[in-house]
Amino acid sequence: MYKIDLNCDLGEGFGVYKMGNDEEILKYITSANIACGFHAGDPKIMHETVRLSLLNDVAIGAHPGLPDLAGFGRRNINVSPDEIYDMVVYQIGALYAFVKSEGGVMHHVKPHGTLYNMAAKNKKLARAIAEGVYNVNPEFILFGLSGSELISEGNRIGLRTASEVFADRTYQLDGSLTPRSAGNAAIITDIDKAAERVYRMIKYGLVMCEQKKDIGIKADTLCIHGDNPHSLIFVRKINKHLKDLGVYIEKIIHE
Amino acid sequence: MYKIDLNCDLGEGFGVYKMGNDEEILKYITSANIACGFHAGDPKIMHETVRLSLLNDVAIGAHPGLPDLAGFGRRNINVSPDEIYDMVVYQIGALYAFVKSEGGVMHHVKPHGTLYNMAAKNKKLARAIAEGVYNVNPEFILFGLSGSELISEGNRIGLRTASEVFADRTYQLDGSLTPRSAGNAAIITDIDKAAERVYRMIKYGLVMCEQKKDIGIKADTLCIHGDNPHSLIFVRKINKHLKDLGVYIEKIIHE
Amino acid sequence: MYKIDLNCDLGEGFGVYKMGNDEEILKYITSANIACGFHAGDPKIMHETVRLSLLNDVAIGAHPGLPDLAGFGRRNINVSPDEIYDMVVYQIGALYAFVKSEGGVMHHVKPHGTLYNMAAKNKKLARAIAEGVYNVNPEFILFGLSGSELISEGNRIGLRTASEVFADRTYQLDGSLTPRSAGNAAIITDIDKAAERVYRMIKYGLVMCEQKKDIGIKADTLCIHGDNPHSLIFVRKINKHLKDLGVYIEKIIHE
Amino acid sequence: MYKIDLNCDLGEGFGVYKMGNDEEILKYITSANIACGFHAGDPKIMHETVRLSLLNDVAIGAHPGLPDLAGFGRRNINVSPDEIYDMVVYQIGALYAFVKSEGGVMHHVKPHGTLYNMAAKNKKLARAIAEGVYNVNPEFILFGLSGSELISEGNRIGLRTASEVFADRTYQLDGSLTPRSAGNAAIITDIDKAAERVYRMIKYGLVMCEQKKDIGIKADTLCIHGDNPHSLIFVRKINKHLKDLGVYIEKIIHE
Repeated sequence: MYKIDLNCDLGEGFGVYKMGNDEEILKYITSANIACGFHAGDPKIMHETVRLSLLNDVAIGAHPGLPDLAGFGRRNINVSPDEIYDMVVYQIGALYAFVKSEGGVMHHVKPHGTLYNMAAKNKKLARAIAEGVYNVNPEFILFGLSGSELISEGNRIGLRTASEVFADRTYQLDGSLTPRSAGNAAIITDIDKAAERVYRMIKYGLVMCEQKKDIGIKADTLCIHGDNPHSLIFVRKINKHLKDLGVYIEKIIHE
Repeated sequence: MYKIDLNCDLGEGFGVYKMGNDEEILKYITSANIACGFHAGDPKIMHETVRLSLLNDVAIGAHPGLPDLAGFGRRNINVSPDEIYDMVVYQIGALYAFVKSEGGVMHHVKPHGTLYNMAAKNKKLARAIAEGVYNVNPEFILFGLSGSELISEGNRIGLRTASEVFADRTYQLDGSLTPRSAGNAAIITDIDKAAERVYRMIKYGLVMCEQKKDIGIKADTLCIHGDNPHSLIFVRKINKHLKDLGVYIEKIIHE
Repeated sequence: MYKIDLNCDLGEGFGVYKMGNDEEILKYITSANIACGFHAGDPKIMHETVRLSLLNDVAIGAHPGLPDLAGFGRRNINVSPDEIYDMVVYQIGALYAFVKSEGGVMHHVKPHGTLYNMAAKNKKLARAIAEGVYNVNPEFILFGLSGSELISEGNRIGLRTASEVFADRTYQLDGSLTPRSAGNAAIITDIDKAAERVYRMIKYGLVMCEQKKDIGIKADTLCIHGDNPHSLIFVRKINKHLKDLGVYIEKIIHE
Repeated sequence: MYKIDLNCDLGEGFGVYKMGNDEEILKYITSANIACGFHAGDPKIMHETVRLSLLNDVAIGAHPGLPDLAGFGRRNINVSPDEIYDMVVYQIGALYAFVKSEGGVMHHVKPHGTLYNMAAKNKKLARAIAEGVYNVNPEFILFGLSGSELISEGNRIGLRTASEVFADRTYQLDGSLTPRSAGNAAIITDIDKAAERVYRMIKYGLVMCEQKKDIGIKADTLCIHGDNPHSLIFVRKINKHLKDLGVYIEKIIHE
């Protein structure tokens, strides 16, 4: 039986500012990563997004980011592993309180933006994040890029992890994503092609990288972007396409 | 047997900025209210303050405030009960995560500054705070001004509450504190006199108000200020003085 | 000759967050009030909005607000006149630097949101704002609600002022706006009717208030809202309608 | 005639948080670099510090920093030259308004912390800062590390510059400061020795670097640290010591 989780970043507005189309997207995904107020989100939005996610029976995860609302967590800030640990613990706790107060159970943690990218390559930062998650609750599942340091460090300290793949991005020989700065070579816009690639990742654990070689990849969860007008079309199509191929779309289960 | 808890606001620095003398104060108190990043405090300081409090076997509480670092949570902001609820849940969760990750148990919640004052008189805000606390964890103890709406609303929804008294402030006929704007009439500087007043609150449940009448008061916990140079002298003296009078200084127990 | 200035709040995004349709709106107005980073706006957005305003030959004003990005400057914060003075000076200077560096001349100052409303009724705050503007540059024109304390205080200290009127809002007997909480009684949705009312304000200095009496009003500048989807339609229609009635739409001139 | 300017970073508190001993330090320096609210400082503190500086006849400069109050502008943030340009313009303007409103004249700009260090080595960032300063007012003097890219880029676009030297830090062969991470090798604690080194910089334009070679250095202004308890002793002693050696302590004159 082939299966995959579809996760999307939600609750990324702030105050009067809107971002994304959370209500619609929630119908087609199985896991929500909810911003925790550092790169986006505020207490009111977190509360609403938790409520909406529970209504849609979607697994809820914290989505901690760097403390940079002006840069949406996308600017590298030179923070130490200890600072990262503290920021992650803080943000997980803030979201946890909303999940708990609404009668839900918090399911996972996925770092946001630059924090995610740093944790993919920097073992010390990856370890700091993994320890922050573990020390708050060793039952939380850690989401990270397939093949990344974040996944290794999470596994090493005993966390359950979920390896994330991208349908609309291309890969390099070392398993990293082709940087967006590479332009068209970085992005896959054809949804059919994207779905076929994901299906191959799930079924065979392989993806053809930009250097035209198959590389191993683990596809537990698929990243869905929610912040642009095409997001909704994309998630509906890929959800349907994968189901048509016989893949079960389901959240990752605590075993 | 007469007893009282001594509580103090801790962890009120931010970034490179220092506030108070937490390490020394912790030796003489039994409960710490730790700032959660809105009016003061940051993830690193919260982590350190939780660690220090556990080392000193001091009960740990969240100290949520209004989102106003520039005003230290002392400026009234016209926020709705729903906004207050969300802010309180967020901040409690953030601190909870540090306590949990350090192997401790979170004990209580005490609103800070203007939030505390608003919750003393405004039933709707008091209810919003109490519900935020209850919904995160009904075991948390809610600290509020003796005789305030916060205490009534906390009790009404089933929270355990702790009524707070002040040794160095005078009271009005309605049980409210004389505003600091009243100058000398608001403040008691003589520590011996302050200790005697607290002893009388504990033993008889009475305090002489500025209108020269005895009013009823419940003294579960005594507020210790930690942010000025005299704080340390004050807490050491009042701690010793109360013990000499036969009062046990101990944290409030979850019964 | 009848004339009026059309002013609109611009540059109210933040970081990745968008607000309004500044590029289009700029074609139909004569004055722009640009957010200065406290309630909205950031250095990049301020720079872009100044550039766009100069390209469209629109008069540029600073639009200082309360320090509350999360509340968009719409929550009352209990700040002293001295604090207001300092906040206004700071924000005016920040915008001034962009105008100066782009070769333009800063023209006016209009307080935002709650700051505007407080300054309409509170003489001390109005005076603090007027003095902040005057002390930075006595040539700046101060925009305020027609008949408000802000206009009186501005005039009293020797500032040139521009009295602002609203086309889509109704008035009370004392010249204040009917609060939005009054629902339909507060809002005029029919653009033709709105334009007729403005024309009458310009020509006769009168407006029929909700108590069905004519009250005196001074119409130097008309407030255009820019933050909702209908804004663009509204500004185009009212611009055209007023011109058809023989009113010149032009910025307020430094005489 | 030998002369030098003594400059110090002032106004680095925030809200209730204090930093440094500005009132005393101002008696011994000739130039103040005033924080502008990004890494430290707020409107009230800026206003007070400008007033104090004018009272002491000290030249006033803006001290723009990275937008990181939590990290005091000391954490590297990966911002583009365009972002830096906008941040610098914004902060210069904010301070300018206080200087103008108090009847003073703004004299110089010195970037803070990490922004200063980045601008010493990165030509594009240095250019962005220099252009920001120039475009607001080409009369402002740009302060930068002696021999740095900031000084070269400032000169290249036609700004007057002031080359800064450090009395209590050691230098590398390339003119850069030995990083603090090098421990004792980075710091000079003996004030007599520090004063002699500065005197040699002024008189001969030379300093002995850690590699035991004399390197060229231009000493227009000496950096005085104001944020630790020894600062006051240091500035008094070095001020007196340099005067005893016949050096005039005076602000840099707009020629």
